[in-house]
Amino acid sequence: MAKFMDVHHGMKGITAEQLREAHDADLAIQGEESVTFEQAWADPESGLVYCLSDAPSAEAVQRIHERAGHPADEIHPVPLVV
Amino acid sequence: MAKFMDVHHGMKGITAEQLREAHDADLAIQGEESVTFEQAWADPESGLVYCLSDAPSAEAVQRIHERAGHPADEIHPVPLVV
Repeated sequence: MAKFMDVHHGMKGITAEQLREAHDADLAIQGEESVTFEQAWADPESGLVYCLSDAPSAEAVQRIHERAGHPADEIHPVPLVV
Repeated sequence: MAKFMDVHHGMKGITAEQLREAHDADLAIQGEESVTFEQAWADPESGLVYCLSDAPSAEAVQRIHERAGHPADEIHPVPLVV
């Protein structure tokens, strides 16, 4: 398992409810790929959303995000954490 | 106070020790701007470092990062968190 930070672009105007719904859609199926989405942060003004996860691979993260309807634009392994 | 996600580019090859030192340099002076750096994640391969903070403004975050020797390339308010 490894940590990943993924980034979604183009989410301008996202609301707290939409972020919650998107996150819940991930949580509902994440177990099928052994992914754990830990937290997500959104900036409605720039349209950027950051998601932190623990997962077997970037591909597993993307499969969950795609199936939940919001593929990530970037997925970076973040092996270093402080 | 608000949450911010800031991003540093060009940190390719960063080590765990360098990330810890950079974070400690922030922590040592963050109180002078009422900033709290909560966590940081690094991808040595892409050279991206993400820092999550609680701060009065993006400018306060940047002042600490600049004085610690590593100005951020992007600072985004992230008012939505799940």
